[in-house]
Amino acid sequence: MYDLPRRFTYGVIESYAAARGGQSVADDALLKYPGNQHSAEWYLFTDLKRPSGERVDSAVIRVMDPEEADLFYVPFFSSLSLVVNPIRPATVNASLDRPVYNDEQTQEALMELLEEQVYWKRNNGWDHVFICQDPNALYKVIDRVKNGVLLVSDFGRLGRDQASLVKDVILPYSHRINTYKGDIGIENRKSLLFFMGNRYRKEGGKIRDLLFQVLENEKGVIIKHGAQSRESRRAASQGMHTSKFCLHPAGDTPSACRLFDAIVSLCVPVIVSDYIELPFEDVIDYRKIAIFVDSNTAVRHGKLVKLLRGVSSERILEIQKELKKVKRYFEYEDPNGTVKEIWQQVSSKLPLIKLMSNRDKRIVMRDLRESDCSCLCSNQSGIHTIL
Amino acid sequence: MYDLPRRFTYGVIESYAAARGGQSVADDALLKYPGNQHSAEWYLFTDLKRPSGERVDSAVIRVMDPEEADLFYVPFFSSLSLVVNPIRPATVNASLDRPVYNDEQTQEALMELLEEQVYWKRNNGWDHVFICQDPNALYKVIDRVKNGVLLVSDFGRLGRDQASLVKDVILPYSHRINTYKGDIGIENRKSLLFFMGNRYRKEGGKIRDLLFQVLENEKGVIIKHGAQSRESRRAASQGMHTSKFCLHPAGDTPSACRLFDAIVSLCVPVIVSDYIELPFEDVIDYRKIAIFVDSNTAVRHGKLVKLLRGVSSERILEIQKELKKVKRYFEYEDPNGTVKEIWQQVSSKLPLIKLMSNRDKRIVMRDLRESDCSCLCSNQSGIHTIL
Repeated sequence: MYDLPRRFTYGVIESYAAARGGQSVADDALLKYPGNQHSAEWYLFTDLKRPSGERVDSAVIRVMDPEEADLFYVPFFSSLSLVVNPIRPATVNASLDRPVYNDEQTQEALMELLEEQVYWKRNNGWDHVFICQDPNALYKVIDRVKNGVLLVSDFGRLGRDQASLVKDVILPYSHRINTYKGDIGIENRKSLLFFMGNRYRKEGGKIRDLLFQVLENEKGVIIKHGAQSRESRRAASQGMHTSKFCLHPAGDTPSACRLFDAIVSLCVPVIVSDYIELPFEDVIDYRKIAIFVDSNTAVRHGKLVKLLRGVSSERILEIQKELKKVKRYFEYEDPNGTVKEIWQQVSSKLPLIKLMSNRDKRIVMRDLRESDCSCLCSNQSGIHTIL
Repeated sequence: MYDLPRRFTYGVIESYAAARGGQSVADDALLKYPGNQHSAEWYLFTDLKRPSGERVDSAVIRVMDPEEADLFYVPFFSSLSLVVNPIRPATVNASLDRPVYNDEQTQEALMELLEEQVYWKRNNGWDHVFICQDPNALYKVIDRVKNGVLLVSDFGRLGRDQASLVKDVILPYSHRINTYKGDIGIENRKSLLFFMGNRYRKEGGKIRDLLFQVLENEKGVIIKHGAQSRESRRAASQGMHTSKFCLHPAGDTPSACRLFDAIVSLCVPVIVSDYIELPFEDVIDYRKIAIFVDSNTAVRHGKLVKLLRGVSSERILEIQKELKKVKRYFEYEDPNGTVKEIWQQVSSKLPLIKLMSNRDKRIVMRDLRESDCSCLCSNQSGIHTIL
């Protein structure tokens, strides 16, 4: 892990707090990363800072001599950096004399620093690991970091030559509502289907309005328009803990925090997001823990509720049982949870990373009609639903 | 490993022998796979048949219950199957009453058998491993096996949607000339550059004739047109063991046996094959054991010999030292050699295989403008030579 200047890690938290009128603290250890769905960058950073004696179970070992390193983690808090400046300007008081934080400048400064490093130049960046969990994180410099292993939420904003299932790792969002502590069961889950969130989104998220139209008058369905707030999270917790199914429609990009909220709620996720990629799909068979429905089918009048009403109680219990089994993969604070699995996934990329960095350095001029890509292609035409 | 009907393994050897007038043998254990550059299929098959107690060091364990298997090896001798019928027809005696072997029919029969298997259908073939070392092996059914891990020599005859560095494994050819037993050194290597082989090849191999033109009158260069025979192999052994550099031009496809002959001869390979992919490139940095020169540079009059004459004795000795270090990767009979590394490479594909087979089964209908591929792209424009 790079020992980056403070401005790229704790400094981002500090700027975030300052922009909201927070007081500065005397010691970095007192800085608290704000609760949000993109906090993987915080968990990975603090994990690697733990004493090696506490990290014996990890797939990656932190070394202090870069000569010994296979991979180089760049712990810039790129997602938090995006939202340092609040959408609504801070009070006059808070912003007085404070220099305004600039995310783009910070991205640029990071790259200027990295591109000077001998270990960056040595392998054209192939062996560097970046976290950019927010789909917009690092957008300004993405073409300069694209050789690296990117830890992302989805590929919604990334081109095929920038990111892929082969090179990169899909992370789960940190769930934002409380884990359901009870056992499996449907007695206390009276609602059929629950969704709470923004009705109007861009691009793939336009499906949300259509889903509202076909679902809002259905019996047993709770579907509400609402924005993020402590209050709405409380209502969502309540709803997800008392429903059999939880809807996960695409947002501006195919992924969203809601899927992981549903999983930890033991509320069977109903995924209506045709382009979604899922975390840890090599170890998790999502057909066992979620229902997939393609968008065209889902927006047909009455179709979705009919499908869900047709799912037997036994099947729901079976899925809940599977959800319980894999839940740990979505708990960032579980010692046997998300962080451990992310490093496992990163380490499994190592053979391909070494291959590409060795190959890059000996490849001679070619007369290529298309770019030099190695691909893994699916030839499935896709299903309507797994039901 | 599938326990395939005999016709796909020993039967192919038997047909090969019969087509050359050989006698049938009473016991399969007496059947000898003919010496050729594509004998990996024989080594892998016999390795997996060894008692598990002898295979403790291997990255793969053979299980007898398919339910326990992560991967399914299909041991069809696809490369030998291609050449069962000699180019020149056998003597009348030998062919009397013998049914003529048909490679295409054998490929079809294999697929009919496989496509009936529950383990084939279960994961769309993603977890099946095929060997097709000859660039033409399995050509008739390649689109039906393309999801699988293909063990190949190069991608010369394969499309981007059929094979790639990501999914497949590049194998070395079995070297055909003797391993050099002596130590590193250049005293007994009086010739600068050696090549013996077919001057006229198709496609990328057309460069050979151009190389002959610029090299055949150069001092210290031995370049001879010749076809495969025991006699020419003896001459090539002699030449490679007494030259500093050994030329490896592209053949009909970018790879050729000669590279591996050069390596085990401690003769520094000079690779003039712009599209070559190399075995085990994650563990071997080929810049340390070979000289790469792009085709345009190599065919410029006097350029190649000038470059090679400029390489210091120290550098040659250094490369020879590295060649000695990695030689074992190219020795199929070394217990710590090629076979072991092939299984290592295959096993490193497992996370991606599991991901793709899980993903395939839940993917819903998408409105894709291009095929559903995950790629790893190099953005290097390439060098002229590493010298």
